[in-house]
Order: sequence, then C-alpha cells, then structure tokens
Amino acid sequence: MTDLSRRLFDELESLVLIDPHTHINPHAPASKTLADIMGYHYYTELAHSAGMPKAYIEDKGITPKEKVGRLVEKLGDLSNTIQVSWLMEICREFFGFQDDAITTKNWEKLYDGALAKMQLADWEQQVLTHSKLEAVFLTNDFDDPLEGFDTKKYIPCLRTDDLVFHFAKPETRARLAKATGIEATSAELLRSAIGKLFAHFTKQGARACAISIPPGFVPMKVSSADAQTVVERAASGGVLTLDQSATLSQFVFWTLAEFCSEHSLPFDLMIGVNRRVYEDGVFQGQDLFDMRVSLIQYKELFNAFPKVTFPISVLGNTSNNELVSYAWIFPNVVTNGHWWYSNIPTYIEVDTRSRLEAVPRSKQVGYYSDMYKLEFALPKFRMYRRVLAKVLAEDFVIGRGWSETKAIELGKQVLRGNVETIFKV
Amino acid sequence: MTDLSRRLFDELESLVLIDPHTHINPHAPASKTLADIMGYHYYTELAHSAGMPKAYIEDKGITPKEKVGRLVEKLGDLSNTIQVSWLMEICREFFGFQDDAITTKNWEKLYDGALAKMQLADWEQQVLTHSKLEAVFLTNDFDDPLEGFDTKKYIPCLRTDDLVFHFAKPETRARLAKATGIEATSAELLRSAIGKLFAHFTKQGARACAISIPPGFVPMKVSSADAQTVVERAASGGVLTLDQSATLSQFVFWTLAEFCSEHSLPFDLMIGVNRRVYEDGVFQGQDLFDMRVSLIQYKELFNAFPKVTFPISVLGNTSNNELVSYAWIFPNVVTNGHWWYSNIPTYIEVDTRSRLEAVPRSKQVGYYSDMYKLEFALPKFRMYRRVLAKVLAEDFVIGRGWSETKAIELGKQVLRGNVETIFKV
Amino acid sequence: MTDLSRRLFDELESLVLIDPHTHINPHAPASKTLADIMGYHYYTELAHSAGMPKAYIEDKGITPKEKVGRLVEKLGDLSNTIQVSWLMEICREFFGFQDDAITTKNWEKLYDGALAKMQLADWEQQVLTHSKLEAVFLTNDFDDPLEGFDTKKYIPCLRTDDLVFHFAKPETRARLAKATGIEATSAELLRSAIGKLFAHFTKQGARACAISIPPGFVPMKVSSADAQTVVERAASGGVLTLDQSATLSQFVFWTLAEFCSEHSLPFDLMIGVNRRVYEDGVFQGQDLFDMRVSLIQYKELFNAFPKVTFPISVLGNTSNNELVSYAWIFPNVVTNGHWWYSNIPTYIEVDTRSRLEAVPRSKQVGYYSDMYKLEFALPKFRMYRRVLAKVLAEDFVIGRGWSETKAIELGKQVLRGNVETIFKV
Repeated sequence: MTDLSRRLFDELESLVLIDPHTHINPHAPASKTLADIMGYHYYTELAHSAGMPKAYIEDKGITPKEKVGRLVEKLGDLSNTIQVSWLMEICREFFGFQDDAITTKNWEKLYDGALAKMQLADWEQQVLTHSKLEAVFLTNDFDDPLEGFDTKKYIPCLRTDDLVFHFAKPETRARLAKATGIEATSAELLRSAIGKLFAHFTKQGARACAISIPPGFVPMKVSSADAQTVVERAASGGVLTLDQSATLSQFVFWTLAEFCSEHSLPFDLMIGVNRRVYEDGVFQGQDLFDMRVSLIQYKELFNAFPKVTFPISVLGNTSNNELVSYAWIFPNVVTNGHWWYSNIPTYIEVDTRSRLEAVPRSKQVGYYSDMYKLEFALPKFRMYRRVLAKVLAEDFVIGRGWSETKAIELGKQVLRGNVETIFKV
Repeated sequence: MTDLSRRLFDELESLVLIDPHTHINPHAPASKTLADIMGYHYYTELAHSAGMPKAYIEDKGITPKEKVGRLVEKLGDLSNTIQVSWLMEICREFFGFQDDAITTKNWEKLYDGALAKMQLADWEQQVLTHSKLEAVFLTNDFDDPLEGFDTKKYIPCLRTDDLVFHFAKPETRARLAKATGIEATSAELLRSAIGKLFAHFTKQGARACAISIPPGFVPMKVSSADAQTVVERAASGGVLTLDQSATLSQFVFWTLAEFCSEHSLPFDLMIGVNRRVYEDGVFQGQDLFDMRVSLIQYKELFNAFPKVTFPISVLGNTSNNELVSYAWIFPNVVTNGHWWYSNIPTYIEVDTRSRLEAVPRSKQVGYYSDMYKLEFALPKFRMYRRVLAKVLAEDFVIGRGWSETKAIELGKQVLRGNVETIFKV
Repeated sequence: MTDLSRRLFDELESLVLIDPHTHINPHAPASKTLADIMGYHYYTELAHSAGMPKAYIEDKGITPKEKVGRLVEKLGDLSNTIQVSWLMEICREFFGFQDDAITTKNWEKLYDGALAKMQLADWEQQVLTHSKLEAVFLTNDFDDPLEGFDTKKYIPCLRTDDLVFHFAKPETRARLAKATGIEATSAELLRSAIGKLFAHFTKQGARACAISIPPGFVPMKVSSADAQTVVERAASGGVLTLDQSATLSQFVFWTLAEFCSEHSLPFDLMIGVNRRVYEDGVFQGQDLFDMRVSLIQYKELFNAFPKVTFPISVLGNTSNNELVSYAWIFPNVVTNGHWWYSNIPTYIEVDTRSRLEAVPRSKQVGYYSDMYKLEFALPKFRMYRRVLAKVLAEDFVIGRGWSETKAIELGKQVLRGNVETIFKV
C-alpha cells in the first residue's frame, strides 16, 4: 500500500458500519467454536474441491473440534485463497494467533484459545465492538416470528426464494398457512397471505425484501386468469409443467414487487445463481452460474415499479458492465455490493472503479458481508476497504486531483451513508 | 501520473485531431449557452437517475438558464462520475472556472460568464483551436441536403438506422421519396433509392456510412423473392410480422454494404444497443443493452464483403475480447473507439491495452468523441489520452523497453494517423 | 518492473519446465529455418489481417527464405503486438539479433545467421537447454503410431477432435479402422475401437486425452438405442441431420470420458472455438468464437465423472469468472493455462490474479505454450512469468505480507509442480 492509500484506508477503517446483507442468526450471532468459523461453506467447499471427501468433512459423528482438525489438513492447498486470508485475519484479530499458517501442529492450541474467548459472556458484543458494527441486516424465512432479539441491531429482511420458486412444495404452503392463517388456494388468497407477511415484517422493522434468482428467470406480470389456474393447480398438489412453474414464480414475484411498492420496501435482487449444479457438493457448495444472463430480462419490472428501489447484486463480474449501465439509467436501480463468485479483490476492484466512474454516488451500496457468523464482517469489509482505498487514491486523489477529505467522504458514503438513505435505517 | 506518463501525455496532447464520429450540427457546432452543455444526455439522464423528475428537467416552459439552475441542484450526487469531470474540465478550460464544484451558489456567475464567451463571433473557431480539432465527422440523416457548411471541416457521414430499422414507417418512406425522387415500392426501386443516397453523400465528401444496431440483429443476404415480398408489403403500408421486419432490415442492411463496397466507403457498425428500454427515461436516456451478443452474428457479412472496411464499436466491455479477436483475424474489421457504456476509464484501459497487444497497429481507431457540441472534444479526448499515455508508459516503454519516441509514434497513429488512412481523409 | 517483481521473476526463470500442451512434432521439434518461426499462424494471420494477400503469404512456389522476406514487409504494422515481441525475443535470445526491429534492410542477415545455428547437429538440445525445458506434451492424432521418439521427453497426448466431430467423414473412419483393426459399424464396435486407442496411447506413456470444442456443444450421455442408430447411419455413409450429428458427437465424447476414467487419464477440454469462421483466412487463421458459452453446459459431465480430472482452457477472458468458480467448486475441474485469444498479458493478468485468489493452489496449471516449434517456449513462458511475478509481488508479497520465499513457492507450484501431480509425470 502506498502512504496515500494507507491514510485513506485508516480513515475508512474508523467508520462504524451497518452491514446491509448477512445470514446472521440473531439468536446465535457469534461463533461458539472455531468449527462455526471453519465450517463456513467457503472452507468446506474449497477443502472438498481440493480433494477432501465430503463424507470426511460432513461426518455427523464428529465433534466440532474434530471437524476443525480435519479441515486443517487441507488448508495448505488453500493458503493462496482470499477466503483463507479472511480466516487468518480473524484468528489474528480475535484470537491473537501469530503464526504464518494454521497447520496440523498448531491448530489445537488455536482452537482451545478461541474457545475460551468465545465462551466469554460478552463475546458477541466484543466482536461487534471490535468490528465497528452497529447493526446487521438478517435473512429471515418468510415464516420467521421475528421475536426474541433486538430488531434495531439485527434488522429483519424478508427472504422470498421459497415463495417464488417453491410454492408448489407442500411444506412451503404449509409454512405459509401456519404463518398467515390463510390457505392460499387461489391467486387472491395467495396475495392476501403475502400481504400478511409484509404487514408482519414491516411492523417488526424489516428494511428490505430479498431474493436470489437463477439466470433464466424473467419477471413478468401474469394475467389474472393465468395466475388463478397455476395457483389452484399448485395448491391442490397438481404437477406443474415447466411453463406453469415459471408462470407461478412470475406471479408470486410480481406480487412481492407490488407489496414492496405499497410498503416502500427496497427489493434486493441477487441475480444469477443456479442451485444444485454440483449435486454431490458439500452443504451450500453446490451452486454455480451461467454468465449468459442479462438485466434486459428485468426491463418490464424496472419500468413497472418506478417507486420500488432495487438494490442489485450480480453473481459474475461479466454482469457488472450491465449493472453499471442499468444503475446509470434507471432511477430505481442501485448497485449492491460484490456477491459470491465476484467477491474477490480482482473483480471487486474493476467493479468498484467502474461504478464510481459512472453511477451516481448516492446509488451505490459499497459492500455487505453475506456472513453467517459475526466474526467475518471484519476481514470481509477490510478486504473491500483495501480495494476502495486503492481506487480512491489512484482514481480520485491522484487521477482527478481530489482532496483526501473529499475522497474519504465519497468512500464513507458508499460504505455507510447510502445504507442509511436507501434502506431508511 | 508518473513523470513518464506525463511526458507521453503532453506529446499526445500536442497532436491536432480529426474526430471520426460526432453528432455535431454543422450549422450550430458550438454551444450557445451552458444549457447546451449541461443538456447533454449524460447530465440529464444521470440527474434523472439520481432522482430528479423528468418533467422538472424537460419542462418546456423554462429558459436555458433555468434549466441549468435545475440541473445544478443534482450535480452533488453526480460529482464522482467521469461525465461530471468532463463538465468541470470544460468550465475550467473554456470559462476560467476555478471552484471545486458547480453549486447552487456559484453556477449563475459561471452561466453568465460562459454566455459572454459563447456570444463572441469567433467562439466556434476558438473552441476548435483550443481543442486542437482540425475536422470532425458528422452523423447525417439520409435525407440531409449536406449544404451550407464546409465539408472539409465537417465531414459528412451517412447514418442509416432509419432506413434499416424504420423503413416500414410512412414518414421514413416519405423522406426517402423526397430525397431521391423514387417511390421505393419494390426491392429494385429501394435499391435504386439507396444508390442515389450514396451518390449524393459521396459527391458531398462523405467518408463513412454508419449505423447503430440492436444486439439481436444478424446481417444476412436476403433472396430476391423474400426481399420483394417484404418491401412491397412495407411500401403498401402492410403490417409486417417480426420475421418479415427482420428480413426487411437484413435486405436494406445488405444493400448498404453492397453500396459501401461499390463506393469504397467504410461502414461503421455500432453494435449492441437496445432502444427504449427505459420508456420513461429522459430524451436519449432510454437505451441499454444485452451483453448476450456476439460478433459471430456478423460472420456472413465479414466474409461476403472483403473490400468493405468495418470500423466496429461495441457497447459493452464484455464484447471487447471478441472485437480484439475478430480484428486480429479479419482484414476488414477495425476496432473503433470506446462507445457509450464502455466509454469510462476503467473499461477504456483494459480495452486499449488488449487492442494494442493483439490488433495490428494500422487497424485501430483509438477514439472518437460522439459529441453533440464542440466543447466536449477536449475533455473526452483528454480522458482517452490519459489512459493511452498510461498504457504506453507501462506496457511499452517500461514493459517492452520501447523508446519514448517509438511509443509516442504508436499513440499518434491510433489517435490520428489511422483516421486518415482508414477513412481516407 | 519493480525490484521486487524482478527478484521474483528471476527465481521463476530459474525453474526447469514441463510444458503441458504443445503441437510439437517429435520428429522435427526445432525449427529448420526462420520460416518455421515466422510461418507460425500468429504471424501469417496478423500479416494477412493487416492487408497482405493470402496468396502472397501462402504461395507454394516460394522458398522458405522468400516467405520470410515477404512476411517481413508487414512486420511494421504488427510491431505493437505481443506476438511480434515473442519473435523479437527469439531472435535476440537464440540468434544474437540486436536491432530494434526486423526490417526489409536487416532480415536477410538475420535469416542466414539463424539458418547456420539451426543447422547445428545439437540445435534441438540447445533450444531445450537454453529454454530450460525438460519435457513437452504433444498433440497426437488418434492414429499416431507414437514411435521413433523419446516419450519421456515428448509426452504423448491423445487428441480427439476428429473422433468426436468428424467420425461421419469416411477418411476418419478409415484411419480408425487402420489404427485399430476394427470397423466401427456399431456403437459397441466404436467403443471397442476407442478402447484400443486408449490402450495403445497409455502403453506409450500418454498423459492426457485432449479436445477442442465449439461453444455450442453440450456433453450428454446418449442412450444405447440412440447411439446405435447414429453410429450405424454414419458408418454406412448416411447423411446425418444436425441433431444426429450432435448425438454422435455426444456419444463419442462420453465414451472418451469413460475411458479416461478407466485409465485415470486427465481429459483436457479447450472450450469455445468455432472453426472456419473466416473461410478465406490463412492456414490456422480462420477460427473465432462466440462468447455466449457457459460451463453450465458441462454440468452433466462434471457430475458423471468425479474421478476424471478436467484441465480446462477457455478461449475468451469473458469465460474466466466461470472457470474460476467451477474450479473452486468441482473437485475434478482444474484451470489450465491461457488459451489463444485470451493469451495476451492484459487478460493473463486478470485471469491469473483471480485464479490465485479463489482456486486451490493445487488445482491450477499456470501455463502451456501451445507451440509448434520449440523456440517459442522461451518467449511465451517468459511473458507468463512476467505477469505471474507481478501478481505475486503486488497481491501476495505486498498485499498480503507474504515472504518472497513463500510467494516463489506458489509460483513454482503453478508453473511446474501441478503439472507433475495433475498429469502424473
């Protein structure tokens, strides 16, 4: 890092954050053992990819400590990855780890030391404080009661993949009926049930609706007659054709957008993931993508809902030029973080540079952690802040002659300010 | 900038240019008020994207000065964009503006000062001289009489979108009939009418035929029978099916290529734009793209017309690797500038680097401004020259040990020399 | 280059290599005249692209020396290309050439001096030694007897394009019959014939099966009945529909994968090339691509053959994000070099950076030369090593605080170590 980048980075590091997308369980937000950290799918899937058998990793008969011991055996093959650099940073920052690598020789001491820390009563708060985290958005199932936690700190978010893509499954319909008291046997009843979910979530302080979407999906308004036919058929347990399934998904999706409009709720779209591509992969390590996806598929949606803000994440760097362009033109399209397979510094850098060059500064959510356990916010946001500091230094302070103060203001706006204005927190 | 980049940049800045693609109106080439500059679609669409209502921006009841005053209200949200950096550079270079930003407090003085300059009798020439512009290519409607201006300075270019994609509209056919004296009621008559246009344009010094093309279009030779059917149907006001529309477009397009061959006119293809994607967008702020486009769609065309040079622009950075490869293989494919959604430094840099590494130096048109008013050539070409100087410094002088003189020669060739040889100006 | 990059580069340069993919003829591995070097398709196609007529380049009535003399006439227009920088490096390293460019004035002396060197009895060994090449993989036709050369130094590799895509051609079937003694008139006989090829190749020390594949191909298991129908029809000289051709290709391809599994042979997939796009191009200068290809097309294959390692090359940089992701998830997917239209430093850099950030280090084959003559290994690997040294310096030593020793180990693993472990040499 140059001195300039370092100064900018230090300023960005001083900022207290709101993390606008995570998978944190508010009832168990911090890790309890190192297995909660090393069990993150990034490590299990990379270990599996490097040759460790799935059965060895996911063996239900082993303790958390044994699981960590096993995963450590493969860390050597993964030492180059940015994901392992997150792990190293967590161990250094939170557990005082000082060695160059986690190996079969030193992992046990690390495990035990981490365990002692994690068992402290205030561990969760220690992590939040040390990570400068003020609040994090959750990913709540549609039937989550949203009770028993501080919704100012752990902000609810209505996740809707099940409703849109799995309504035809009996368990989904059963959960919906239980959550809303409505048997969704018609299009109108389904709409009513969804309305109840929105009422519940917004009352509990939800700040976003969210969904991840396969590359082939094209949102469209569905006619009443078509909606009625497919909802009835699905609700009665009938088998749907592929076309009918698509129509059902479109109907539910469009209805969600209508309620987002009614409730002024941003609708996070995470575009591009195909589920279960690698069927024998480890848990959460089975999904991949098809780069042949375009935001033109969302033309009808963006035009139909001018009042709904769509913070958009794309799975591949190949989609970023489109995302920049759509956010540059559509008032309701906002760039949102760096997702999954494009969440590595190489792609974060080119995506960040291009967004800062062509999308209004008020329409960019710089980063979210996507984490399952609180300890990951620190290394993931730090990775992003390093890139952001570099881009601000090179492109703005040096390239355009901006003052450092002005560059830092821009950085803070995309890191935090826009989270407040866009999600109204 | 390093000292080396700066030296190269200064040399490139000293070069007098011919701008090979603009939308300049030769009867009013320079701006008359700051509204001509800030009314450029980049600012209206970005202000709209950042939340300013279309009706507020495009209000027909306001004066140019009021329009500027309104747009200034949103500049703060756009201060990060490269487009606003062009505006700042114009105001500094041409109007002596020295503040850090254009705000609601200082814009009026700027407006009045600019107005005084623009009212000078020789303003057009001042801009040309200060910008080191010798000549600019125009974008002329096919029925443009091409009279009343110096065609050596403002070089005609036959723009053909209307003919290829809108011949079925009565107003297009009426314009064609008026311009040529031919009612194009058959394929042969349509060909004759197009031939008249080429004769007129080339006589008036046109140096290129040009068109922008949606991503789905595939140029193909059309049989005489098919051509006859669709031309007759369109000419008689019949409604065309989608297939018939495509056939009609293909026929007209192929005919244009034939006349380009006959008249030795380069055929500029600007590939990838979908029109009116955002229907409620501001004027010229409605068009976007679908990255799922390939130059393989032009295989038949490139093979069929070996004598026609096709300077090709692509809308997205995602298409650049293909463009580099097709220009590397096909003698008649030339890379042409950095268009619209890829015309930002992040993408210009990677596109420039790759082209300089793999396409013959004689087949690259480095840049065109695409401007509507002369004042934009300076900041846009300067943006490009900064990138070009950086690439020449890093990849050629440092990376390959070239002398600075040799690197500057390469830079000057892609900036100007190739415009002369490829377009024969 | 910074001092740090230079130190890393020097260490990488000291490494003795095994080149895991070339088109070397083991009976004539080194060049005999400069025409063998300048006749490489990169120079003929670029000269043709820059305007030299095909007939002038491929004139059968000229001597090698005349051919070089002709190509030299166009080198000026190609001096910017990375491919000409390889040529310059060859001439400097092997022939003591010291001028700044090869021109019509100095080429003859260069030609004659090179000829004298190449006529030395130990030229092949001199090139191998100077290039630090221990062994190279070949690309052998399926009916290659694999005799008369040292298969430890020139490692056989079974190339299968003809079998998969041209079995319907009588000459392919005749060659197969001759090589195996089996007339492949049924699916079962075709399988037996292919089995014989594998037995022969593996007995002769083959270390890989390989194929290049057009973007539209989708590997699928074919039912016995479907396989039987199409093989019979093809074997009897019947004309196949497009669907039948695809089925035949799928059947042969799937059978190859089965034998790779049985023989523990890696199956190199080079994905994305369309043949004969530019029909009037020079020899080997006719192929291009369609970026609209996805590795999702290989989903069935990767799932069906967990024991087969698939080293994958993609033709375009646009496919790299997918390749990184698929190699990150699938244990049997390995990244393999930088192929053809993405084999230029701009794209090598972004591809290398991303792979080192997200793919296990044990699953990356850094580079292969793809060369036809031994002299090209040196400049091509050097180009890669420059990029690799830069990435290791910036991202690992500076960015992550790695020691130089640790960074060099990573570099050596992707350059050589993984070639040994993945191909078992």
